Order: sequence, then C-alpha cells, then structure tokens
Amino acid sequence: MKAAFLYGARDVRLGTQPDPRPGPGEALVKVRAVGICGTDIHYYRDGHVGPTKIVEPLVMGHEFAGEVVELGPGVTEVKVGDRVAVDPAMSCDRCESCLNGYPNLCFYPKFVGTPPYHGGLREYVTHPAHLLFPFPQELTFVEGALLEMLGVAIHSIDLPRLKLADTVAVLGCGPIGLLIADLARRAGAIKVYCTDILPWRVQVAKARGADLALNPNETDVVAEIMEATHGRGVDVAFDVAGALETPQQAVDVVKPGGKVVITGINAEDRIPLRATEARRKGVTIRMVRRMKHVYPRAIALVSNRVVEIASLATHRYSLDQIVEAFRAVDEQVPGMVKVVVEM
Amino acid sequence: MKAAFLYGARDVRLGTQPDPRPGPGEALVKVRAVGICGTDIHYYRDGHVGPTKIVEPLVMGHEFAGEVVELGPGVTEVKVGDRVAVDPAMSCDRCESCLNGYPNLCFYPKFVGTPPYHGGLREYVTHPAHLLFPFPQELTFVEGALLEMLGVAIHSIDLPRLKLADTVAVLGCGPIGLLIADLARRAGAIKVYCTDILPWRVQVAKARGADLALNPNETDVVAEIMEATHGRGVDVAFDVAGALETPQQAVDVVKPGGKVVITGINAEDRIPLRATEARRKGVTIRMVRRMKHVYPRAIALVSNRVVEIASLATHRYSLDQIVEAFRAVDEQVPGMVKVVVEM
Amino acid sequence: MKAAFLYGARDVRLGTQPDPRPGPGEALVKVRAVGICGTDIHYYRDGHVGPTKIVEPLVMGHEFAGEVVELGPGVTEVKVGDRVAVDPAMSCDRCESCLNGYPNLCFYPKFVGTPPYHGGLREYVTHPAHLLFPFPQELTFVEGALLEMLGVAIHSIDLPRLKLADTVAVLGCGPIGLLIADLARRAGAIKVYCTDILPWRVQVAKARGADLALNPNETDVVAEIMEATHGRGVDVAFDVAGALETPQQAVDVVKPGGKVVITGINAEDRIPLRATEARRKGVTIRMVRRMKHVYPRAIALVSNRVVEIASLATHRYSLDQIVEAFRAVDEQVPGMVKVVVEM
Amino acid sequence: MKAAFLYGARDVRLGTQPDPRPGPGEALVKVRAVGICGTDIHYYRDGHVGPTKIVEPLVMGHEFAGEVVELGPGVTEVKVGDRVAVDPAMSCDRCESCLNGYPNLCFYPKFVGTPPYHGGLREYVTHPAHLLFPFPQELTFVEGALLEMLGVAIHSIDLPRLKLADTVAVLGCGPIGLLIADLARRAGAIKVYCTDILPWRVQVAKARGADLALNPNETDVVAEIMEATHGRGVDVAFDVAGALETPQQAVDVVKPGGKVVITGINAEDRIPLRATEARRKGVTIRMVRRMKHVYPRAIALVSNRVVEIASLATHRYSLDQIVEAFRAVDEQVPGMVKVVVEM
Repeated sequence: MKAAFLYGARDVRLGTQPDPRPGPGEALVKVRAVGICGTDIHYYRDGHVGPTKIVEPLVMGHEFAGEVVELGPGVTEVKVGDRVAVDPAMSCDRCESCLNGYPNLCFYPKFVGTPPYHGGLREYVTHPAHLLFPFPQELTFVEGALLEMLGVAIHSIDLPRLKLADTVAVLGCGPIGLLIADLARRAGAIKVYCTDILPWRVQVAKARGADLALNPNETDVVAEIMEATHGRGVDVAFDVAGALETPQQAVDVVKPGGKVVITGINAEDRIPLRATEARRKGVTIRMVRRMKHVYPRAIALVSNRVVEIASLATHRYSLDQIVEAFRAVDEQVPGMVKVVVEM
Repeated sequence: MKAAFLYGARDVRLGTQPDPRPGPGEALVKVRAVGICGTDIHYYRDGHVGPTKIVEPLVMGHEFAGEVVELGPGVTEVKVGDRVAVDPAMSCDRCESCLNGYPNLCFYPKFVGTPPYHGGLREYVTHPAHLLFPFPQELTFVEGALLEMLGVAIHSIDLPRLKLADTVAVLGCGPIGLLIADLARRAGAIKVYCTDILPWRVQVAKARGADLALNPNETDVVAEIMEATHGRGVDVAFDVAGALETPQQAVDVVKPGGKVVITGINAEDRIPLRATEARRKGVTIRMVRRMKHVYPRAIALVSNRVVEIASLATHRYSLDQIVEAFRAVDEQVPGMVKVVVEM
Repeated sequence: MKAAFLYGARDVRLGTQPDPRPGPGEALVKVRAVGICGTDIHYYRDGHVGPTKIVEPLVMGHEFAGEVVELGPGVTEVKVGDRVAVDPAMSCDRCESCLNGYPNLCFYPKFVGTPPYHGGLREYVTHPAHLLFPFPQELTFVEGALLEMLGVAIHSIDLPRLKLADTVAVLGCGPIGLLIADLARRAGAIKVYCTDILPWRVQVAKARGADLALNPNETDVVAEIMEATHGRGVDVAFDVAGALETPQQAVDVVKPGGKVVITGINAEDRIPLRATEARRKGVTIRMVRRMKHVYPRAIALVSNRVVEIASLATHRYSLDQIVEAFRAVDEQVPGMVKVVVEM
Repeated sequence: MKAAFLYGARDVRLGTQPDPRPGPGEALVKVRAVGICGTDIHYYRDGHVGPTKIVEPLVMGHEFAGEVVELGPGVTEVKVGDRVAVDPAMSCDRCESCLNGYPNLCFYPKFVGTPPYHGGLREYVTHPAHLLFPFPQELTFVEGALLEMLGVAIHSIDLPRLKLADTVAVLGCGPIGLLIADLARRAGAIKVYCTDILPWRVQVAKARGADLALNPNETDVVAEIMEATHGRGVDVAFDVAGALETPQQAVDVVKPGGKVVITGINAEDRIPLRATEARRKGVTIRMVRRMKHVYPRAIALVSNRVVEIASLATHRYSLDQIVEAFRAVDEQVPGMVKVVVEM
C-alpha cells in the first residue's frame, strides 16, 4: 500500500509499506482523511520536536479518520463499515496517570505519527479497537479527522473551568485557536478577543464571531484588550500561538486571579515570563497536554452542530500530492487554516 | 406614599408609609417594577417560611428595580437618574462568610421583604448604595426587577461547574427553572431535559429550547430521561420544583458521579432521599442559597442578549391591583410564569 | 479447601469448595486475614443489602490480605511470596467512570463477597493480579486486611478537601469513623469532634485523640459541638454511623457553606433531611461510594506509621470460629471495634 | 517617637516621627516586634522592588505585632490591652477581587511598609481595627510578628490542595520555605524534600523533619528527588527561593500532572521555563500573591501548637540596633533564619 514517509528535515516522500493485518484487539482501518498538524510541521522543518528525533523514515499524521474494513480477534468495540476517528495516543492504561483518568499524562506513552510509531498518512492502519470512535453518517471523514484537533480545544477549555459571562482572550488563531474561541463562547464566555499575526486568520476569527480580532503586527494587542475590558483584564487567556511573546501577553491581559492556558507548542522550547506581573496578579498557568477521554464529547458537539469544523479544512490534497500538502503548511499559504489529505 | 402590606396568611392590603429619606451611604429609589416570588407566596399562604413568621404587617417584595432619585451623604456608587436593580440581601460584610466571598451565607443576614425588613412593594425605598446595580437604557425596569431571579439561576449554574457537552435535567419550570435551563445551554450543555406539572410551563420550556419537556403527571419522567440518555443519566440535575418527589428524581436521573443541585424551596421542609441510589452513584448534592456577587454578570448576560428574560413576565399589575397580583400567583392562573407589579 | 458460607439471614456455616486455580492474569492467594465489615453484617442480619439478595450460599468477606502462592499465565504485577492486600472491586476498566478514574462508580461493577461473587472467607482465592497490592514486611496480614477499610476512610477524607486548621465532626466511631477521625487530623484538621452510641467506642475515640468524644444517648451532641465551635459550626461533618438521625445532625453541626460527607450505610435506606437548615447553610453533601485507586496511599500511610490500624482489630478468630466471629459483630460485644478472622 | 527610615539603597537610619493618633475605625498599637522580610531586603539592597521605588524616606516593616493602647471612634473589633497581629494589607473591600474573597488580589491595594505607606519599624502605628487580629497570652509578640509570614505559608499550602500521602518538594528554606515544609506535613504530605544553598538552612530543614535536605551547590537536587520518588516525581513542588533556577527545577521534580507553586520573589524579575517538560507533564503553576483571610487560622495553628514558629527568630535586635539588623539579613550571617526587631 502507499504511505508518505518523512525522511528528515523538509524531505517527505511517497513510498510503500506491506499491507497490515489486525492483531488481537485491533481493527484494520482504511484511512480516508488526515489533517496535517503544527507538530507534523515541527518535525518537517527541523527533523525533531524537542528531544524526539526522526531517525528512520516515518509515516507522519496523527489526526485521521477512516472506515473499519477488518476486525482482529476479540474486537467488540467497532464493526466493519464503521466510520471512525482514530485516537492516536496509545496510553498504557495501568500507570497512576492512566488509572486516575489522565491518559494524556501516561508515564509510558506511545503516539502514532511520532517516532518510532508510524502514523496515518498511508492507505491502511491497524489500531487498538478501543481507541477507534465511531461517528455518525452526518459527519464527513474530513470532519472525523479534525476531531483530534477539536479534542485538544475541548481539553484546553475544560482546564480553566469557564463561568457564564467570563471574558476570554485567544492569542493565536490557527485551527485550534479558532476552535478554542468558538468553544469558549459555547461554554458561556460573553466576550472573546482574538489575535494572530496572519491577516487572513484575523479575518476568519472575526467572521467566526470574535468580539475583537487583532494583529499584533499592527496594534498593541495587550493595550487593546485591556481597554476593551475597561482595565480589568479577561478571566482566561489562551496562548495558542506557541510564540515567545504570547505567554507574557497572556499574563498581561488576564485580571488579577486570572488563568493562563498554554496550548501552543513553542519551537524555541522557552516560556519566558516576568515574575512581577505574574505574581502580583496571582495567576494560575495551566499547560495543556493533549486531551483526556474527550472523543465522545467532540463527536456530540459536531453532530449536534454546536461547533462547526468543516470549513477549517481550507486546503485539501490527495495522498499523491503529499509534498505539496506539507509545503502549503510550511509556507503558510495565504488563506490557509488547515490542510487535510483526503484518500 | 403607598405601600402593600402582608398582614398574615392570605391577607395583603394597600396602605401608606411615611416618605423615606436616604441616610449616609444610602440612595432613595423610586420603585418601578417588583416581581412576586415563590418565597413571597410561601409567606402569603402560610404567614411564615420555616421558622420565620410575619408578626407585624410587612411590605413584601425583594425582586425589584427602580430609579435613583436622591442620594444620602457620601454616596459615590450611583447617581440620580440611574436605573438600578436592588440587591435585597444586606450582608454584614465582616463575618467569615462575607470576607471569603459568600455574602449569601452571611452569619448575620438581613433581607428586605423578609421579616422584619420591609420590601419593595411601595413607591420608594432607601437602600445601601453599594447594593444598587445600575443597568443600561436597553433594559426595561421589568427586566431590571427580574435580575434577582436571574442571579439565583446563575448561582445555581455556577455550583456544579458544567462542562461542554454535559447533559442536564431541570425538574420544575417556574421562572427560575426556565432560566436555569436557558443558562445551562449557554454554559455548554448539549441536551436539556425539563419537567413541570403545569402544562403551560411544559410548553414554555419546549418553546425556549428544551430537548425534552415532560409532565410527571402524564409520564414517568425518570424513565424518559434515562431512555433519552441511553441509560447513562445526566451529568447534572437541578431540582427547582421544591416538591417532595423531585430530590429523589434528581438522584435517579443523574449518572454515577453526577451532581444534584437543589434550588427549589420545599414547603414541607423535608428532603426525603433513598440512601442506596444516592450512595451507589456517589452523588454530590449542592443546596443553593441565594447568590454571590452575580449582578454584574446578570446585567451583562441580559444586555448582551445572551439570555432573554422579559417574556417571563407574563402577568403584569399595578400597585393598586396588589390583591389580584398575589391571587394570580397563589392560584397559578393558566399561562402564568411570572407576575410583576409595575409602578 | 475450607470456606465459610452465608446461607441466609443469621445462617453462616463452614463448608468446602474445590481448590481454585489461577486463570490468565490472575494470581492464587492464600488468604491470611479477613475483616468482617458492616456490609457483611447487613447481609448476615437481613439476607440482603437494599435490592441485592443472598440467593445461593455465598462466601462472604471483602476485606482481606494474603500471600501469593501461584501465578496464572501472563502475570507481571506480583510474584510468588508477595504479601498482598486484595482490592475486592473488579471494575470494567472501559466505561466512562473507569476511564475517568472512578472505578468506584463503574457502570458494570463486580464485587467479591457480594452476590454472586464469592469473597475472602476461605483458604484460597484467585484474583486479577492488577488488583493485588503488595505491602512490605513491616505490615502484618491483619493490617493488610484492614487496608480496604482504610481506603474507604481515605476516600472519605479526599472528597471534602480539608484545609489546614479546619474543624471536623465525625458522627459514628466504628472502625471507619475512627480512621476518618485520625486521618482528618493528619490532613490538617485542628479540632475533631466524635460521637458514638457505644460507650467503649467513645472511649476509643477519646484515646485516639478526639477533642470531644460524645455519646448522643447521654448528651445533645449538636449543642455540644456548636458550643465547642462558638456557634460557628465545623467545616466538615462526616456521617459514618448510617443512622437515621446522623445526616441531619451533620447538617446541623456544619458552618454555613460547610460540607457533609455521608460514608455510613443506612439500613433503612432513607436519608431524611430538613430542607430549611440545609438550604440556609448552602451545604454540600457528598455521598461516599467506596474508593478510587487509594491502595498505594493506604500502604504508604501505614508503613510510614502516619496512621495506626492494628489496634482496631480488637477481636480475632480462626476460620473454624466463623459463627462466633459473625455473632460478635452482630451483637456488638463490649469493647469490640473490629473483628478479624485470621488463617 | 522613634522610627527607622530607609532613605535609599543600603541607607537605613533611626529618626523620629510625631506621635500618631487613631482616627475613626482605627486603633493605636504600641509595636512590640517586627520581622525583617525578604521584601524589605530587596528595598534595602536596590531601593526598589520591580517598578515600586523608595522616593522619600520610608519606615519599613510589614510583619509586626503589638499591643492596643488607644481606640479611635467607633472601634469594636479590639480593646485596649489586646495583643494583636497587624495585617499590613489594606484592601479596598469593594472591588471584584475583595468582594469575592481575594483581598490579596485587590485592584486598589495599599500596603504598609511599602511606598508610600510607612510600616511597623517605629514605636507606635495607627491601623484599621478590623485588620488587627488579637492573639492569646500564650503567644509571644515575636510569634505574633511572625504570623504574617506564616500566613503566606498557609496560603501557599492552600493553593495546591494537598491530599493525604502526597509527596512534596520545597526549594528554598528561608523562614517561609521552612514553614511551608512544616505545614505540608501537617496537611498530610508523607514525604517532604527540601533544598537550600545556605548550609545552616539545610541543617534546620533536616532538624525540622525534612525527609531529604539537599544543597544544590553540593548535589544534583533534581536527580536526588527523582530517585527518592523512584522516578515518579513529587505531587507538588514549592519554589520559595526566588532564584532563576528553581522554577524549572520545580517543573523537573513534579510528576506528570503535578503542581508548581511559586512563592519566592525573583529579584531579576524573570521566570525562565522550558516549554517541553512543562507541557509534556501538563503542569499547573500557581503564583502566590500574599494571603487571604488566614490570620485566624494562623493564630489557631500556633496556639494549638500544630506548628512551631518561635525558633525561626534566630537573631533579635532592638530598634536602636536597626542598622545591624538590616545588615544581618543582607549579609545572611551564618545561622540566621529570621531577624526580628523587638521593642
């Protein structure tokens, strides 16, 4: 079968792999849609994310959905023909974190699409059946693939426990930032202020309902958000940019006692903060690590049309166009929010 | 000035009081709208609520709004001409509860419209200025009067800390129940199931967006809600009925680990629960006592049109019609959700 | 092998069972000590607990420890010779509750020593190896058997999240109540007030460090606790008695905003509460359902000598004396805190 | 009366001030003991803390206790002769933070001993009576002065909500760090690991009961703590050092999902963190800002001898020796934990 391998920095190539067969407890999934994520692009640009390196050609892709085509022995969770989203995180299920409901903090994590586990950019994958989440006919496979991203957004929203009439800032309007902004409003936020350095993303944020959508290259976003809140600051600020400036901006725009949620992944591996403001405000900073058991909620939110995700997939490619697909994300082509590979 | 006094059970009469003058820190408010509440009706029917009795003629009414017409010495919080909602709870501001942000749990509470403090059913009241909450021109005085009730609903929603995609049951669709149902959805609930024994309230619940609106006189509401949730139960159940059956119904419809919020005031002063279900499910029961510092949020929610309250005031009377107004609530005239006295 | 069966109300008899062999993932445990619990006695007295009935002779006993003597295929969690406490709750590990860290709220629970699963009052048991918790040499098997009970106490203490300098009431000083009192102090409580109707348990509570130890048959315990707290009430009240009076007493002795934790199992299956006090105080009621992942903490607390449990086992019997053992608990022989069967 | 003024960096001098008289709601307190704090020393060394500068000679000292000698009009909270601890933080009591129980996060704070408000290093002060906390005869004035510091430690312990059997690291064993270590154990921690760069403080930590007391100049403290926890990490790490290295060390020693509490005040105004570890562990970082309504609890803990504070006052001076007192703190004379000025 066909598979797209990352060989190293900026070197992605189409190749082949033997057809996989499902083992006990596994299902064989025909992959139908794969999102390309910021993490994939970190690997694509640098050949590593933090200490984790590409040492052998790896099939990328951890945001994907497909159709169940064969069951391994003992599988009861899904059936052939199910349309399923794939949870790429294979937690150990026995460590202290897993037992307590935090598979995202598993002491022994395995993650498909991250070395050394091949990901979803290939025609077929086998995967533990209990990590496949069937979704209804109303959802397209592209929507199914984007559920992983929505899951991260849901988890980000869960952490600060929004209250009705809270105000929120979202710094960084990539697809997860846009979803966080949407979900914040669905979770009761009364005002949502968004920022991004890419002009079209500012436009999309505005179009999706942001009360303010600002470009830090054009304006002092901290000053504008403080003015919009009459000097009080917001209840919760989400840093979804992964930039060096945004963590401190988040501290600067929250009210005393406010919460800062850091979802973005920082390429330079630094979170530089000033102590004085953070301390005087007595802020709480929550670092987001993936998600925990949110697929059923993600599916419910999309199939009940509480949140709209399909339009985020602005650029769609076939598996044969995999090089173009990675390039589009890497170069951040104008108008691009999310690139999806359809099969 | 004119004032409506409750003399005892089912004995309400229009009378007069001397015009009040604002003392230091107080403002004089021309009352413009007063809601008649379930608590008022408990006093009207029985002459007491629990151990608190009407011993001298008392001006009822604790849900009200008006216009500031005069300031006492030292007032800076409001100005003449302000349209204000009146927080009827005068907490001591120095006890452990008040200091920790829970004036609703004040050790030394005073409450206007409850013996021995006269309430809002008169032409003018004086009130501590820091308990007056100015609201914008877009809100009518009737909406202003209903903010107290909305405040209780907000506090009820705050307690269980809803998560996105939670499911909710609201048992009892009086005005506060209806608002709790509305707010639950605004706070992220994906399904809201409502019950009431009055057919027109079931209709209103449906019309406002309930996913199920059921009458326990016509159907087994526990069975229906369990079926709607595929046997799982809801995340949170609100008992807003104040009936003897609803607390156990709430326990019966929540999932294992679910939360039961009891907002209703029970006339028989009993909460009968079965131990086995409550224990096996490990439920948490939160008793709602008024609200804490929610007026600004209530005003923000209404003026941003996140929640609609005006249409709840189905029946409106003048102060001269005070006897008819109390009767309408007492007799639960068909179609009645909320009675408001306008002046 | 020998096994003690409950045939029905007040009918316990020694009999035999075939020797068990461990299946895949299971270990064979030679049972060394079994505590007899209030739940066992509910079955012994009535032949049922709530809707769960003894229909066939059942081996009772869910508080037990022993020695691993044989491993089934694939077992890695324990080894032959390990001294282990047995977690009797076999949760499904896949339902929403289990995944989120609440096996105590499993949708599909199985529980050894409860119909239809035989318990620990026999010479050998097989049990899933991941539910066996090795404890160090310093702990006796009797201490190992009491870890289950300590686990319930730990979970009860976890729920209300005590703060340093909190005050606490413990209503009911059976072994779990005594442990809750001990743990409350270890968790920062500054004053612990205990009650029990059995005079010797009042003595034990006092001896273990209760600031007040009261007998409701001799004094007005609510009045005494309110006086001891200068009218404020305690931060948290634990009902560990399972009596009809204690839930309301718990409400009566907590401060406004206080928490009531109900650990006791009520034989009459009713929790009668008055609405007025519960509502005016805005109390939170937490129903305790077993425990969640606390064995490692229980072992750490005992082996670090933070809490002392051995002396609670006031009455010890052999398996041959099983009839006497049940009678001692049933009749509440003077001086008895906990009966343990040693093998 | 005599008063000790800070004129600028390393320039402290004894001078005089007119005798103060208590205004309405105030009491006159004869100061009896004043602790010298890390914040005082930041002012002493640099003439400023962050953006707050000494522009006119200022009486330092915000940790103090004394005796009430005169009451202003309307005071009911204290009486002449009371031994009182002085809460130096004068919050506005009306802003959103104050109303919600967070005076430490007041939008309009005033703080004695910080520009422009004179502090306690003088013979008499006037202070709002509701900010004076009477303590019993058993406590010395030195203990009374140290209650402020204990309050910060209590608040630091409150934030992460310790559970029974948690493990804790305390990085930095100045007096607040030592108290946090003590309180962590009182709040249920089973193991407490301490670090400090001053050898005698390591000794004191050990003597007060630390399970490990390490000097980062002598050993790899992260490696040692990870080894002590068998690679798991601690549940909560407190950074009480205010160093540049300790925030990241705190992240490095917590378990996945662990909490980092930052109490130390960083002189360089930077909190440098690596993103990868913080994110992979999904840590929560709580910045400590003073305390909220903890004086009564602090007094209860000391008078019930739950925590011992007197011996922390290793070095004691008279007001006439104020220059020596500041020098002792500045130079960190061997053996010094806390300097107190007695009057």
